[in-house]
Amino acid sequence: MAGTDNFFVYFQDIEIVMDKGPDIKDITLSVEEVVNKSGIKDGVIHITSVGSTGSVTTIEYEPGVIKDLKDIINEIAPPDRYYEHEKAWHDGNGHSHVQAAIIGPSISVSIRNYEMVLGTWQQIVIINHDIKQRTRKITVTVVGNT
Amino acid sequence: MAGTDNFFVYFQDIEIVMDKGPDIKDITLSVEEVVNKSGIKDGVIHITSVGSTGSVTTIEYEPGVIKDLKDIINEIAPPDRYYEHEKAWHDGNGHSHVQAAIIGPSISVSIRNYEMVLGTWQQIVIINHDIKQRTRKITVTVVGNT
Amino acid sequence: MAGTDNFFVYFQDIEIVMDKGPDIKDITLSVEEVVNKSGIKDGVIHITSVGSTGSVTTIEYEPGVIKDLKDIINEIAPPDRYYEHEKAWHDGNGHSHVQAAIIGPSISVSIRNYEMVLGTWQQIVIINHDIKQRTRKITVTVVGNT
Repeated sequence: MAGTDNFFVYFQDIEIVMDKGPDIKDITLSVEEVVNKSGIKDGVIHITSVGSTGSVTTIEYEPGVIKDLKDIINEIAPPDRYYEHEKAWHDGNGHSHVQAAIIGPSISVSIRNYEMVLGTWQQIVIINHDIKQRTRKITVTVVGNT
Repeated sequence: MAGTDNFFVYFQDIEIVMDKGPDIKDITLSVEEVVNKSGIKDGVIHITSVGSTGSVTTIEYEPGVIKDLKDIINEIAPPDRYYEHEKAWHDGNGHSHVQAAIIGPSISVSIRNYEMVLGTWQQIVIINHDIKQRTRKITVTVVGNT
Repeated sequence: MAGTDNFFVYFQDIEIVMDKGPDIKDITLSVEEVVNKSGIKDGVIHITSVGSTGSVTTIEYEPGVIKDLKDIINEIAPPDRYYEHEKAWHDGNGHSHVQAAIIGPSISVSIRNYEMVLGTWQQIVIINHDIKQRTRKITVTVVGNT
């Protein structure tokens, strides 16, 4: 616990080039960099996907289970099904929006003694659900005391 | 980044009348109003659904894809299936609780230069999963520096 | 709203022994304890599961609907299906990782007048998706003013 004589908000955004969805990339190191730069000892970090066809979560970043997550995401909202979204845009990414809305755009991770508290096999991932390659932006905001 | 000489928490809650679920409403403008009133320049805003049959996420608020999301939510936890929840309450909303728990009650969005960082087509939505019309309450809390 | 003359971050982590997944436990009282100890009047509390086979959400903690949620989680990512994750670890918990990634690791709840703003039937739950009994760690961080 700490008073406000040293309370801070620090932020830095991340951009990452991603393949067509579902593409899942590990951004843990980039987020750790923000924690380190912030100088914040205890607090919380918020990671949010900018754009409605991206989502953020945690998983073990291992090729097999990443493939498994992609498969099940595509079963929850299959790319090859008809979506009413077509009527508005004819852009073929109705499933991308639905998948991203269900996974969700943001997570929060605690910071203790200058480090994020994550499991050994728990990585922070951004998911691009869109149907084309794109550069995704992720906002990273740290709140806590130095 | 900013020190604590101007660090603030600001909050204001939102109430919105919603149809029986799944009903999805865009609350982005109401949340923006809270950001504006807060006077906070850089930080983060937390939006949480109060009540176990509501959820919060982001999606493009376009009638077609909103219909698509409703359909797929009702496939994940179908209203017409038998739920053990019936034994406790006989209120027919077992699917509402399950749907809300899977989508999740809260999101966090970053604030940069007095504005939320959202994609052009990314709106903040509240989902009422309950089986009757109801007024849903959403808490909105801003943390950051002015 | 309040200035920074009394702005605080307070944290305390929770550990809980859980059965093999999906096991769902109510941690609302433990989280309330952290809120009370923090002395924070207005702000927000962040609850995050440490480890990639755990997740956090809210639901009415009632045996029937808890059983319903477990059943549907196991339909989204069935334990008895083949997962590519097997190739890496042969530990039979591919479904655990996928389930946890979809539900998500964290939630945020608002604090008003020294109390969390939750619905009457809305409890904070930790889900162990792993295939064995284990002690799960949850980080709890409160940010706000006294």
